[in-house]
Formats: sequence, structure tokens, C-alpha cells
Amino acid sequence: MKNILIIGCGLIGSSILRAVNQKKMFRNIFILEKSKKNISIIKKLNIKCKIIKNIKNISVNFDLIIFCTPMSQYSNVILKINKLITKKTIVTDVGSTKELSFINVKKKLKKNTTWIPSHPITGSEVSGPKYGNKNLFKNKWCVLIKEKNFNKLHLLKLKSFWKKLGSKVILMNSKQHDVIFSITSHLPHLIAYNLVKTATDFEKNKKHNLIKFSAGGLRDFSRIAASNEIMWRDIFFNNKKNMILAIDLFIKNLNSFKQDINLKKNKQIIKKLIKTKKVRKQIILLKQDVNKPDFGR
Amino acid sequence: MKNILIIGCGLIGSSILRAVNQKKMFRNIFILEKSKKNISIIKKLNIKCKIIKNIKNISVNFDLIIFCTPMSQYSNVILKINKLITKKTIVTDVGSTKELSFINVKKKLKKNTTWIPSHPITGSEVSGPKYGNKNLFKNKWCVLIKEKNFNKLHLLKLKSFWKKLGSKVILMNSKQHDVIFSITSHLPHLIAYNLVKTATDFEKNKKHNLIKFSAGGLRDFSRIAASNEIMWRDIFFNNKKNMILAIDLFIKNLNSFKQDINLKKNKQIIKKLIKTKKVRKQIILLKQDVNKPDFGR
Repeated sequence: MKNILIIGCGLIGSSILRAVNQKKMFRNIFILEKSKKNISIIKKLNIKCKIIKNIKNISVNFDLIIFCTPMSQYSNVILKINKLITKKTIVTDVGSTKELSFINVKKKLKKNTTWIPSHPITGSEVSGPKYGNKNLFKNKWCVLIKEKNFNKLHLLKLKSFWKKLGSKVILMNSKQHDVIFSITSHLPHLIAYNLVKTATDFEKNKKHNLIKFSAGGLRDFSRIAASNEIMWRDIFFNNKKNMILAIDLFIKNLNSFKQDINLKKNKQIIKKLIKTKKVRKQIILLKQDVNKPDFGR
Repeated sequence: MKNILIIGCGLIGSSILRAVNQKKMFRNIFILEKSKKNISIIKKLNIKCKIIKNIKNISVNFDLIIFCTPMSQYSNVILKINKLITKKTIVTDVGSTKELSFINVKKKLKKNTTWIPSHPITGSEVSGPKYGNKNLFKNKWCVLIKEKNFNKLHLLKLKSFWKKLGSKVILMNSKQHDVIFSITSHLPHLIAYNLVKTATDFEKNKKHNLIKFSAGGLRDFSRIAASNEIMWRDIFFNNKKNMILAIDLFIKNLNSFKQDINLKKNKQIIKKLIKTKKVRKQIILLKQDVNKPDFGR
């Protein structure tokens, strides 16, 4: 492929930039980025690329256009880049929810364009190009969304793109995607935010200084709860339907734990606690984490 | 001090053993341990200590007796060690809750003994002497419980004991302790268990294979939810009153988040998400964690 346009050059966008540059995957790399701070960081990377602030003056045939902005910005940007899309252009994004964002995108997108959504499972609590890394995608899952009437050739090419970046590619439809990640990622983030909120509410009410004792558990949640607020608002709103179901199931289970504690139901609680331990073993077997104890960092 | 008795030689007990041995803090180290597996690991450490399986045959004047068993075993063990307690003996434990365990202990304990509870904030998801470490307590908080009519000399000596192990000692009463740690440690653990339980329930209901995508958030919770089930059942039951209050506050906040998501309340949710980010900064300032992004291990 010859020309790539990366729209938004934060953590993910700048990691793609670093990776495609190192692997010499494109002849020309274009970046659409507004933030002065981000632009100044990207310039310091000394990567041969063209940074565009205003898309109006551009006339290039792109092979790949990849959206790496917060999902709430997609609609606005699409209207500006429609004129750059040819039949040859593969359009994708890296957003964390797929069903609703996909429907919204379709409304604005030039007709007969195939937008094949991607979701590299590579996030962190930090954001911005400062933290980008050419190996960010290495050995990580990248979900590609395969809907009806997808363009087979484009899908093959996009698959090969992510594989070159080191990802393990898996296909699913947007419905499946949003259900699975509501549980493995979106609910955990909301729960982390909610736990930190509960701790601060408590500190305020009881006037106890408790943050300094957070090494006992709260610390780990606070890391996740330091993630980018725009990105996570977009995720929660876009995956609303599944979030509500996940929250309800979570509260149902928590009330059951509450009852076990209140009535000191020994057998029930031990059974539950042992069961969750087994999940940890599965996660390590599946190489989603390493089997290394954590005593604080 | 001359003689120490460490009761239960798991993660914490064996870490105390390693530390007091290295610092030559006692002339004689005694270990009360039943588990054959633990004994075999301790023997391999080549530390000069006497391992006791049956307390009946022992007659030593101990300067320090330290309970490192699960809290539910305290009552049984106390009855056996009462005869070893003299006026000089300092008795303490390392359990994670204080109010209720303290009341139960007092009932069984030989009269006029001062038991000064300790709580080193040093846990991990792993347990057993295999993971012990002589530096486990270094730069970590150790809470000492100061109740009415405490023995000043004993408190000073116990303070000095933990300081020699590297801990930062802080005094509070058992009520304060249990309230603070219900939020910074006990609730986070219950929430982690509950999140993993919710994910497995979901996997079972929907027949989606989702654990393999746990790198997006669930992974971090699963580590905490792999903690020892006996220890955590004891903590949840012993700190029942505060746990119920913490769970209720957590659910109240989660329902408020649910409403924000359901009604797409943009301002409210952004405000909440930004606020929790600030807590993270506080935690890093207080050296409860390091400012290093986590991209998975």
C-alpha cells in the first residue's frame, strides 16, 4: 500500500505511526492532527510524515484511512474526508465500541465505502503520543468487525496490516464485540471509576484521610480509573445497552455477596472465592497476564 | 528481646522470620506451624529456628508472640499459648481487621495480658512461605492499635520491632482502622471478586468465550480476586458492619453512574471521571504507587 492517513495521533495513532514507519509499510504517511502539543511531540520523533491541520487543501488517493480520535469526533471528521475516499480506500478505526458507532458512521460516510472497524486491545491508563510505542500491538488481539456485504479484498488487506504490526487478528460481528467487551473491559473500567468515587465520597463524609493507605487494594483500581475521560464517556454512551445489563448483573451479584457476609454464609462465600481464583489461572494460561505476584510497585 | 514465637508461617510469618533472622533481632526464633508443606519450605531456608508442631511440650518465656494465622484460628490457638504468656510478653497479630477480632481474642486471652494488634499493609494475591521476603515490610505502613489501658512500654517495644523491619508505624484505634480499611482494601477485594464472578456468570449464560480478551481491564481485577479465600472470608465476616455500609455506598454510586449512562448525562459523567483521575495523582504523590503506565505485563 502506498498512502496512509492516520486521523488523530494520540497513544494509538502515534503507535501506528511509529510501527508503519519502522516496518516501511507505506511510501507516504499523512497525519491529521489539530493539537499543537501532539504535533510538537510527533515532530520530535523525526519520522518522515506529512502533518495536516486542514484537510481541505489535500488531494491524495489513500489506500488506508484509520480513525484514532475519540469516537465522538468520527461524524465531524467523516464529512471532511469523504472526498478523499476512492473505491480502493480501506477505511477503519480503532474505537472500543462498534455497534452504535458503526451505525452513526454509515449515515455520514460516502456511499459504497467499506468501513471495516478494528479494535486493537492495547489500551492503557495513559494517553497522548508521548506514550506511543512501535511494539504496542505486538502479540495483542485486534478484533476486526465482519458485517454483511463486507469487501473481502479490503478485509484481507486490513488483516494483513494488523498482522504486520504484530497483532493476533480475530473476526466477529459488532454485536458480539460490544457484548464481550462490555464485560471484559467497559464494566471493569466503570467499576474502577466507581470504587475511587466511593472512596473519595467516604473520605469527604467521614473526614478520614484514607488515600494514604491505598496500597491494600484501592491503588490498583485507581490506575484504571485514571484513564482518559473523553474516551471512556464515549465508550459508556456508545455501549449503553450492554453497560446497563452488565451493571445490573454486577449489582445482583454484589447483593448476593452482601447477604453472604451479613448472614455469615461460610460455604457459599468460600465456594464463590475459590471459583474466581480458577479464572485467574485461566487468564494466565491464555497469556492475558503473567504469573508474577504483585507486592506493589 | 530474646525469644520470639511466630504462629503460622505463611507469606507474612515467613517474611517476619526472614527479616528477624537477617537483622539478628532475637536470640531464639520459634515457629508454630502445622502444615507439612510450609515446614518443608521453611526448612530449606536454612534459618536457625525451632519449628514446633505441638505447643504442649514447650516451656519458654517469650518476649514477643505474633499471630500470623488466618483470623478464624486465633481463638483456638490462644487457649494453647496462654500458659506461655508472662507479664513481659508482648502479644500481637497481623490480621486485616481489628475491632471484632480484638473483642473475640480478649475473651479467650489470659487475664492482664496486653495484646496490641498490628496490621502491616503488605499483602499480595499470593500466600504461603514460598513468597515470603525479608524486605516485605520495607517502607510499608504498619498500623498499631492503641486502645484504652494499653501498656506503654509494650507499645514502644512493638513500635521499635516494626520499625526495625522497615515499616512506617502509625497508631489508630480499632474502630478507625476497620472503617478506613473497609474502603481502601476490603471493598476493593470484594469488588474484584464480584467482577470476576459477574464475568464468569456472563460467560456461562451467553456462551461467549470472553476470558481470552481479559487484557482490556478484567485481567487486573482477576489478580486481586485470586487472593486467599480463607483470609478474605475472615476479613469480610469480621468487618461485616463496615462492609455492608461500604457496599451500600458503592451500589448507590453505581446506580448514579448507570443513570448518567442511560440518560447520556455528558457533564455529570465527565465531572466524575475527571475527579477520579485526581485521586490517582494523590496516590502517586503519597508514594502508594509509581507513576509508570501499565500496558499489561
